[in-house]
Amino acid sequence: MVTIESKRITPPKRLLYGPGPSAVDPRAYEAMSQPVVGIRDPYLLDLLSEIQSGLRNAFGTRNEATFPIPGGGGAGMEAAVSSFVLPGSKFAIFAAGLFADRMTVVAQRQRATVARFEKPWGEVFSAEEAEEFIQRQQPDVVGFVQAETSTGAYQSGRAITAAARKVNALVIADCVTSLGAMPVELDSVGIDVAYSCSQKGLSCPAGLSPVSISPRAYQWLQSRPEPPYTWYLDLALISKYFEPAHVYHHTPSPPLYYAMHQGLAAIEEEGLQNRWARHQQTNKQLLAGLERLGFQPLVKNPDHRIWHLTTVIPPAHVDEASLRQKLLERHNIEIASGLGQLSGKILRIGTMGPLATEESVDFLLESLADCM
Amino acid sequence: MVTIESKRITPPKRLLYGPGPSAVDPRAYEAMSQPVVGIRDPYLLDLLSEIQSGLRNAFGTRNEATFPIPGGGGAGMEAAVSSFVLPGSKFAIFAAGLFADRMTVVAQRQRATVARFEKPWGEVFSAEEAEEFIQRQQPDVVGFVQAETSTGAYQSGRAITAAARKVNALVIADCVTSLGAMPVELDSVGIDVAYSCSQKGLSCPAGLSPVSISPRAYQWLQSRPEPPYTWYLDLALISKYFEPAHVYHHTPSPPLYYAMHQGLAAIEEEGLQNRWARHQQTNKQLLAGLERLGFQPLVKNPDHRIWHLTTVIPPAHVDEASLRQKLLERHNIEIASGLGQLSGKILRIGTMGPLATEESVDFLLESLADCM
Repeated sequence: MVTIESKRITPPKRLLYGPGPSAVDPRAYEAMSQPVVGIRDPYLLDLLSEIQSGLRNAFGTRNEATFPIPGGGGAGMEAAVSSFVLPGSKFAIFAAGLFADRMTVVAQRQRATVARFEKPWGEVFSAEEAEEFIQRQQPDVVGFVQAETSTGAYQSGRAITAAARKVNALVIADCVTSLGAMPVELDSVGIDVAYSCSQKGLSCPAGLSPVSISPRAYQWLQSRPEPPYTWYLDLALISKYFEPAHVYHHTPSPPLYYAMHQGLAAIEEEGLQNRWARHQQTNKQLLAGLERLGFQPLVKNPDHRIWHLTTVIPPAHVDEASLRQKLLERHNIEIASGLGQLSGKILRIGTMGPLATEESVDFLLESLADCM
Repeated sequence: MVTIESKRITPPKRLLYGPGPSAVDPRAYEAMSQPVVGIRDPYLLDLLSEIQSGLRNAFGTRNEATFPIPGGGGAGMEAAVSSFVLPGSKFAIFAAGLFADRMTVVAQRQRATVARFEKPWGEVFSAEEAEEFIQRQQPDVVGFVQAETSTGAYQSGRAITAAARKVNALVIADCVTSLGAMPVELDSVGIDVAYSCSQKGLSCPAGLSPVSISPRAYQWLQSRPEPPYTWYLDLALISKYFEPAHVYHHTPSPPLYYAMHQGLAAIEEEGLQNRWARHQQTNKQLLAGLERLGFQPLVKNPDHRIWHLTTVIPPAHVDEASLRQKLLERHNIEIASGLGQLSGKILRIGTMGPLATEESVDFLLESLADCM
């Protein structure tokens, strides 16, 4: 048996320039060592209500049903899909990346009939394409990924929600990578159900998935004919803890709540629009520098790029795996490879939260140049 | 919009004498403010392997497949039941409390045929009862709760596993409250699949559910005819992250890993058997004191009591809700009411980890006397 009794936690100080987990806001670190309290402690419930308010700000919504559920973005995805996509119903998915594929699998496990509109990874969908697909499929629910972490492609979803509304379909959006760093704007885009994570644009540690549900989706959920297969991720049950009666469903993690509160506070301190602008600015700076080093952007259209997650194809002579290894060893820098069909073909470089600054981008570019 | 930008996290210092969340080990608090690292960072993977070793120690098992999954005890329950109970299969549940009822609901949502052996809350099951029930039902899987958090009743499970083995049924045990504070002993009891939580006997914050799978159950899982409804809590997928290839399934939460590592380290430092003895000792002291104050134990047989979660019926003149309120206001002490059919009828008092000491029990008893 390994004996761990005398070991203390002394992690290396990595610079997390990957797609997430991203650098954690110093305020969040400070918060996590504060004492835990019980699940209905007045202090926790006050904090929770402020977290919900901060999440509404980041999501761009007035949805009352906005709260963090336990687990990561995958928990949010399964909660959204299993709660809103009935077995046997038609679920139309816009698919151009790994997380749209994951949404497909999750929906198939719910015994939904999945219709996929596929495009090459890195592309997004036009209003005409969305309109044609949705009119042809007449789905009950539509799913899309606002910021595809596997490709670096962003689309607000306006093109999709407009078409979905015409056939009265609910729209589920994967906002795992967009929340907190670029526009999500649930209400103005017209998204019904959104989920995200804590460890990317919110600059918090992983462990919570913020979820938001529009009034019409919430109403649908209350009259759902039978419960979903999942109990743990059933949003009809989970949401009751976040309503005034605070009905027990699961035990929340106070340190993760504390961290999220402070991550959201940092966003309000800076101003959401200022934070977006900062991420947009560093994206331009980073991509210009990468192009000088011979990298090419995977997402061709500048309007379709995630600001804080830049995806690039390395020059032919550069081996991406050994470049990543060198960056970690020489500079304590973590960046990421591609996923799925892009594995080994691209690099994914995040400049999020505390690392979305001119100095941090300069440092990253210098370190890259040093390791090539 | 509530503005939270200038607020810092300053929770009251509660004394958590409830059924969990329990007092967090100081080592775990210190660990959580350490820097996060990426999901395949060598530092995290080393730590994880030590966490797995520490969990095997606490679980009393040599099961290779022993690891923490994201979420609380409910996530562990759904992961275990949905992964090992096939739709249409027979699942026999020993039911004498809220968490056995929850296991029933989770299994029904998996479309299993559930057979329940019900006894009054607070009781446990004899070898003869288990044998008769299991022989009559011939189940594919058997479920029981080792430490019923809603009633304070404990049973090792030896009576049940012996009977289950005769019909070749897998056994799932809810060890949410037993792990880390009293005997779990998966291997010697003969439990195939166990799940627990981080915020009770392990003295860590909530957010992780340790799971352990026996070799024969693991083998069964690899040849399961079709995947479960859940993707996020499918143990066949989750387990791949904890094997040498570390296949991406979800993003683990480093602060929760750090805390769990230190919680387990504290257990090894003290010695598991010493820790059990400490909890057993404080239980006797607490119950003796409570009886002097006029409380009666809910669990009549001393051998069937959880050592670190004492459940008592208050004297007739004591209103349990106002007693709890006074304890919180005057002494910053949290204890808990009953759940479900015992709501308002009992008190549940935890003496776990740092609070399982003679001084802490004395302080609690004095505070109780002061508030009655």
